[in-house]
Amino acid sequence: MTTIAFTKGQGTGNDFVLVEDADGTLELTQEQIAQICHRHFGVGADGLIRVVRSEHLPEGRPLLAEEPRAEWFMDYRNADGSVAEMCGNGVRVFSRYLTSRGLAEIMPGSTLPVATRAGIKDVQASAGGFQVDLGRWALVPGDVTVDDELGGASRPGLGIDVGNPHVVVLLPDRAAQQRMQLIEPPVLRPAPPAGANVEFVALGEQPIVDGVGQISMRVFERGVGETLSCGTGTAAAALATRHWMGESAPNLWRVQVPGGALTVRMFAAEDGEHVALGGPAELVFEGSFTLA
Amino acid sequence: MTTIAFTKGQGTGNDFVLVEDADGTLELTQEQIAQICHRHFGVGADGLIRVVRSEHLPEGRPLLAEEPRAEWFMDYRNADGSVAEMCGNGVRVFSRYLTSRGLAEIMPGSTLPVATRAGIKDVQASAGGFQVDLGRWALVPGDVTVDDELGGASRPGLGIDVGNPHVVVLLPDRAAQQRMQLIEPPVLRPAPPAGANVEFVALGEQPIVDGVGQISMRVFERGVGETLSCGTGTAAAALATRHWMGESAPNLWRVQVPGGALTVRMFAAEDGEHVALGGPAELVFEGSFTLA
Repeated sequence: MTTIAFTKGQGTGNDFVLVEDADGTLELTQEQIAQICHRHFGVGADGLIRVVRSEHLPEGRPLLAEEPRAEWFMDYRNADGSVAEMCGNGVRVFSRYLTSRGLAEIMPGSTLPVATRAGIKDVQASAGGFQVDLGRWALVPGDVTVDDELGGASRPGLGIDVGNPHVVVLLPDRAAQQRMQLIEPPVLRPAPPAGANVEFVALGEQPIVDGVGQISMRVFERGVGETLSCGTGTAAAALATRHWMGESAPNLWRVQVPGGALTVRMFAAEDGEHVALGGPAELVFEGSFTLA
Repeated sequence: MTTIAFTKGQGTGNDFVLVEDADGTLELTQEQIAQICHRHFGVGADGLIRVVRSEHLPEGRPLLAEEPRAEWFMDYRNADGSVAEMCGNGVRVFSRYLTSRGLAEIMPGSTLPVATRAGIKDVQASAGGFQVDLGRWALVPGDVTVDDELGGASRPGLGIDVGNPHVVVLLPDRAAQQRMQLIEPPVLRPAPPAGANVEFVALGEQPIVDGVGQISMRVFERGVGETLSCGTGTAAAALATRHWMGESAPNLWRVQVPGGALTVRMFAAEDGEHVALGGPAELVFEGSFTLA
């Protein structure tokens, strides 16, 4: 029987079991990860993050060659044990872990490169938390409609790719957003080949305050259901709203999600426009779990 | 900042945070308990159990006078922090905790008296777990109907009191049971004054195997929603099915719930018939949590 020490962390209600395995010696099977992430029979989490030195992973060594400072690799697994490339809130909680444990430092104004299966992600300290550069994004061409569970009508959706696929729908107001049940998966026509997370957005009462766009969002994650937060979904929601708002739209957004509030920032980079996600990231408790 | 050590335990998927506080010095507020039990921002559980010596609680001392062996009190709180009198699966997990930690022993053939706000509950070791005597039970007089979410019809329900109120509904088969969504609270007519947990029961393919009644159950707990298990609900489901089956019905039942299987036993006691609940109860992990 193996007992593993872990830390539980969360960012706007997206929660993770973090397991430190600097030397990459811990092999967890898909079944063991699913057992750990089960909310009644295990520890309970949206995903498991193994904290491992990049040099000890085949996926990590090329990234280390590209950026020697990318010392730590976020080995992210979904709650069902399957491998995931990236998780926006996960990277932010991962960064909280590294800095809290003294494994890495983020100097004011500088960035910490974090190695992930989606490449190196740059993290900065931000007010009360961490901001991660999610990199480039793209509009997905083609019209998509989303069947409206509220009134039988269909609403237009905007496809946005932020490393993973999203469809964003604008609702008339916050009340309509709160009335949604979001129990069944939204029906997309045409259905994207790999599915998509669907974000339902409402403008704030004042859509722009002090130059900052204000929206609220609820999200239905493919294969999961409604969640308290979705990092890339938050970015997609702000990008879609800016698109609809036109030229007067800001490049800084505050997005209210059921689990809290996140900041989305669009900025020019060498290879095109990037989008970054910022907000709180906390460690919640310590524990040890004995594998069956 | 106070850091508290805890153990997480579960019985058929009903899960609890156990906090050992032998001398009764730990005062947790309702807000702190709700914070600890939150599944994304805290540890996550259906309830919190404080493990405290009966002598250190005003509710415990009279029980100790009645039964000097009732050394330990199960101070049970619901996930929202409110006080609860009893929890059938909670008592079984509490017993696992006491025996695992060497705080109490259960000799073969003997019982461990556990102090609760609903009085003393007698616990015995049983195959792979613990059995708790829930005490006397009663049919609730009067007809009640439950609106059928499946087909628009209404079904008759049987009211059973097992310390808390239940309404049990018999479904035609397992397939009908599995089709139910159980998202909205079932509508009871007339509505019981304090509400009720509602159990939807299907007979096993062979309703009696080797003298043991076989049923499966799904439960909608008032104020909570569908859960993986409900100890008293399991007892109510077996009692109602025995009532419907008539004189040939057994006094021992195996009840399949979404979180596993429980045994329900009816037996004669000095003050009338009692019902007992048996099944697995496990400790899942250890942790420490810092209160905000």
